[in-house]
Amino acid sequence: MDYQPRPEDQRFILDAVLGASCRLNGLAPFGEFDAPLQSQLLEEAGRFIGEVIAPLNRVGDEAGCRFDQGSVTTPPGFREAYRAFWQAGWPALSAAPEDGGQGLPALLSAIVSEWLSAANQGFNMAPGLLHGAYECLKHHGNDELKQHYLPKLASGEWLATMCLTEAHAGSDLGQVRTRATPQADGSHRVSGSKIFISGGEHDLSDNIVHLVLCRLPDAPAGPKGLSLVLAPKLLPDGTRNAIHCERIEEKMGLHGSPTCQMRLDEATCWLIGEPSRGLQAMFVMMNSARLLVALQGIGLLDAAWQKADAYARERRQMRAPQVPASRGPNDAADLIVEHPAMRRILDTQRAWIDGARVLTYRTALLLDVAKHDADKGVRERAQRWCALITPVLKAACTQQGFQGASECLQVFGGHGYVRESGVEQIVRDARVSMIYEGTNEIQAIDLLVRKVLPDGGTGMGKLLVELRDELEASRDTDADAQRRLAQLRYLTTTVAMASHADPALPYEVADDYLRVVMLTLMAWAWARIDVAASDEADLARWSVPAAAFRRHVLPEFDMRLGMVKRACEAVSLQPAA
Amino acid sequence: MDYQPRPEDQRFILDAVLGASCRLNGLAPFGEFDAPLQSQLLEEAGRFIGEVIAPLNRVGDEAGCRFDQGSVTTPPGFREAYRAFWQAGWPALSAAPEDGGQGLPALLSAIVSEWLSAANQGFNMAPGLLHGAYECLKHHGNDELKQHYLPKLASGEWLATMCLTEAHAGSDLGQVRTRATPQADGSHRVSGSKIFISGGEHDLSDNIVHLVLCRLPDAPAGPKGLSLVLAPKLLPDGTRNAIHCERIEEKMGLHGSPTCQMRLDEATCWLIGEPSRGLQAMFVMMNSARLLVALQGIGLLDAAWQKADAYARERRQMRAPQVPASRGPNDAADLIVEHPAMRRILDTQRAWIDGARVLTYRTALLLDVAKHDADKGVRERAQRWCALITPVLKAACTQQGFQGASECLQVFGGHGYVRESGVEQIVRDARVSMIYEGTNEIQAIDLLVRKVLPDGGTGMGKLLVELRDELEASRDTDADAQRRLAQLRYLTTTVAMASHADPALPYEVADDYLRVVMLTLMAWAWARIDVAASDEADLARWSVPAAAFRRHVLPEFDMRLGMVKRACEAVSLQPAA
Repeated sequence: MDYQPRPEDQRFILDAVLGASCRLNGLAPFGEFDAPLQSQLLEEAGRFIGEVIAPLNRVGDEAGCRFDQGSVTTPPGFREAYRAFWQAGWPALSAAPEDGGQGLPALLSAIVSEWLSAANQGFNMAPGLLHGAYECLKHHGNDELKQHYLPKLASGEWLATMCLTEAHAGSDLGQVRTRATPQADGSHRVSGSKIFISGGEHDLSDNIVHLVLCRLPDAPAGPKGLSLVLAPKLLPDGTRNAIHCERIEEKMGLHGSPTCQMRLDEATCWLIGEPSRGLQAMFVMMNSARLLVALQGIGLLDAAWQKADAYARERRQMRAPQVPASRGPNDAADLIVEHPAMRRILDTQRAWIDGARVLTYRTALLLDVAKHDADKGVRERAQRWCALITPVLKAACTQQGFQGASECLQVFGGHGYVRESGVEQIVRDARVSMIYEGTNEIQAIDLLVRKVLPDGGTGMGKLLVELRDELEASRDTDADAQRRLAQLRYLTTTVAMASHADPALPYEVADDYLRVVMLTLMAWAWARIDVAASDEADLARWSVPAAAFRRHVLPEFDMRLGMVKRACEAVSLQPAA
Repeated sequence: MDYQPRPEDQRFILDAVLGASCRLNGLAPFGEFDAPLQSQLLEEAGRFIGEVIAPLNRVGDEAGCRFDQGSVTTPPGFREAYRAFWQAGWPALSAAPEDGGQGLPALLSAIVSEWLSAANQGFNMAPGLLHGAYECLKHHGNDELKQHYLPKLASGEWLATMCLTEAHAGSDLGQVRTRATPQADGSHRVSGSKIFISGGEHDLSDNIVHLVLCRLPDAPAGPKGLSLVLAPKLLPDGTRNAIHCERIEEKMGLHGSPTCQMRLDEATCWLIGEPSRGLQAMFVMMNSARLLVALQGIGLLDAAWQKADAYARERRQMRAPQVPASRGPNDAADLIVEHPAMRRILDTQRAWIDGARVLTYRTALLLDVAKHDADKGVRERAQRWCALITPVLKAACTQQGFQGASECLQVFGGHGYVRESGVEQIVRDARVSMIYEGTNEIQAIDLLVRKVLPDGGTGMGKLLVELRDELEASRDTDADAQRRLAQLRYLTTTVAMASHADPALPYEVADDYLRVVMLTLMAWAWARIDVAASDEADLARWSVPAAAFRRHVLPEFDMRLGMVKRACEAVSLQPAA
């Protein structure tokens, strides 16, 4: 059973919960965008992904990528599927019209990307970095580079990589040693070795555009001495550049995506942006890339859920504790879905997917707002949300993607552990998203240490007040969600005060604080869904995961809140230094 | 880096915490057993496992088992290692002297089995069922069967399988269809098809002894019509029996262990025990087999922890929030172990391993007590502990084995996702233990529905009082552990009352109830360790995980307690039917 997008779920969240098309319609570039267009695009994307991309998921895992003397062959069917994908215009969805793009909201790209992850994450790794590379080049490249590379990246005809990590420097980019030497013609010769480069070499596109983090002569040590250069696989004159794949990794999963070790031997490169301002150029793409990783977690969890749900409604195992309506007179056993422990797994994972979709789609929408709204104050508020909430979603959604997929595996019993069910592949594929684009522990530090605490929690406080006001405006009566928003505000102040006394404290509680934020946001999201679910059909779809959320997910809120509080209290009990 | 047993940890738990050798010494068969002998055996076992078994773990995963026309070839080195293993006498450790065994406590076998799991679970699957098959045959086989098979099973010269599952019946043994037809000579002809048979075919031993669940003619439907038969691969006259491997499964992990689909075509078999009493014969081995699976979880988690701990003490990444002593003047980054989020992962997993070892070793010890103590009351109390606590340990330790190994993978960052680190293999190998020997959800139902509630919680209540008394006797001052024991007693009564009103309730709360029991036991175990850790060396080893347990693990207690309580309250709020 291949993954099948169900656009009706997205439609409800976008229209009834978030009022997305109205909001987008008010932004200058999307004046002609409306709900019917949105609906049509999602239907088409869903059909394409279900018919063309999803059926290649299994072969991607089993055949995997093959490395031979510097070349990488992707799994059978991937090359043709990728050609069909970019020629149908899917990578260009939210690229600017002047670059050949369709100029549609980033929100739509985000949903398409979630579905691609669900259908075939090994495949989706290839175009996964396209939009980030496009944005980076668009904002920081010079005209010549833009003219040559921007349209190809916008369309997806050429694929892109991010060459950051080196063997001695994993998460620690300040340690990067790759060297760039300026040339008389304005280009640079770059030498060094990079590891963990997704799509560093492959046969999907004719050219590959590498964005490489390196260091110019006399650049300061550490992250402030990093420059970003563009290194094409094929130079503009058609010759091969000196950037080569030396091997590909054997991985736990994502076998459809080659993870390459790359060597640059005096490769010809061009600076993107100012010298030693490479990290700034990259940060443009950081929030949107992290959001896409959060959507991977949701997508893979939905893929596992679809499989488990179908299996549980078809396979019979043992007697349920109460006679279910589905038991026929000749059935010696009941459907798996009738067993409370299995029901709980399915409903709980559904609650995670649905609630997290509200939050990630809202974030994608606010990326559009932050870019295009006429009002500076509105743009800044949207930007604040994206900055604060993106690391929360990246960490929480990828953790749930892995753990929740493993829960779904459990529904299959022993069959889940063998390849045929397809669900163990999802668990393996999902694991890496907790690591890349900044490990989940780094997301927690980014949230608390770099974003919440520097202004003493003021920004987070304002965001929470906005959420409170939105709930009140929607005439929501969920006092519970309101109470949690208030508790998180108070907790934020508590942590800020205790961190003055003990600067190590935020590093100790960052992971728990992030969980409190996520659970607060989820409570808010489910309060919004409750208000939006107006008729019986809506209630039939949304009330079961709503109940599962409150019963099985939300209790973690008090636990984490208590853990952070006790750590703060321990600080205030210490004698002054 | 291969796994290396560290017997000093076991020694502390056995001697200082559990007083195991004294207790065993008081049992008739172990009159000559003492701490020095125990110590010597553990040293020897640790050395053998570290030197012979652990180095084959990687090749077991990568080469895997190969199937060719009914034959199965195990990974290179496995056959030789297995021969060395049984010839050194390790399988015979706790078999009876009259069968050629060494007559040592089951507790020692349990520890050896935990280390084998840690070193190479793919290998350990092979002897994993030996002891259970030995016990089953010893208690239920007739003299002729025992004479022919018991010594070979005791020594491990022949390996054994349990052929239970059929394609249409996973956890639901009552659905088994394999048919046995009695013959004039007292044997039976058996036909049917079995799936998921670990070690159903291989080249490790000259013969394989299959225990097969089947149905005699006119047997009642359901589980009460099942009989158990013995089907050797090679018949006593040396000819091949009609039981064949048809394929092996492609699995997420455990590639070193062949998971076979077996077909019996009028295979020659002999009844073990009475007709239609097959399940009773099997239940003999159930508790000890489940305990071994719990130990797998602990072993694999310790293997992942050892790898992650070594990596974190050697690899430098980014600056720690406070200047650590380990930072040299030329170090641009600090050791991973200095980062609080990584420290937390390592200490928390250590807390799980150490606490769970106290509980599983206590259970293994009580299996010996239940069998050999002179006092009937003592035997019954030991038996009660084993019956009630084994499902708790099976579920909780295997869940932690998988999730904790995944946490340890996180310490490696991107390197954890690639094969070379070896940690992703542990995550894959660990996953199945949450499923086999009864899924973890079935363990929870076994605990609450089948064992706690039938006597209204009285047995569980008595067990908790014993634990309280033991704490008091050890002059422990941990009021916290005492309070939790009392809370669990009260909760048990609450669930028992609410279940009268709503018979479906226990199925709804079984998983949460099991977690409360586990966390209560862990709090008790850590209170016992605290008392036992008497000198500075002990404190240096045990106080860090003790603190991590209370700070990061124990908060789940209140959360789960609240979840069960609220479910009970919801029942009592319902109007009477």
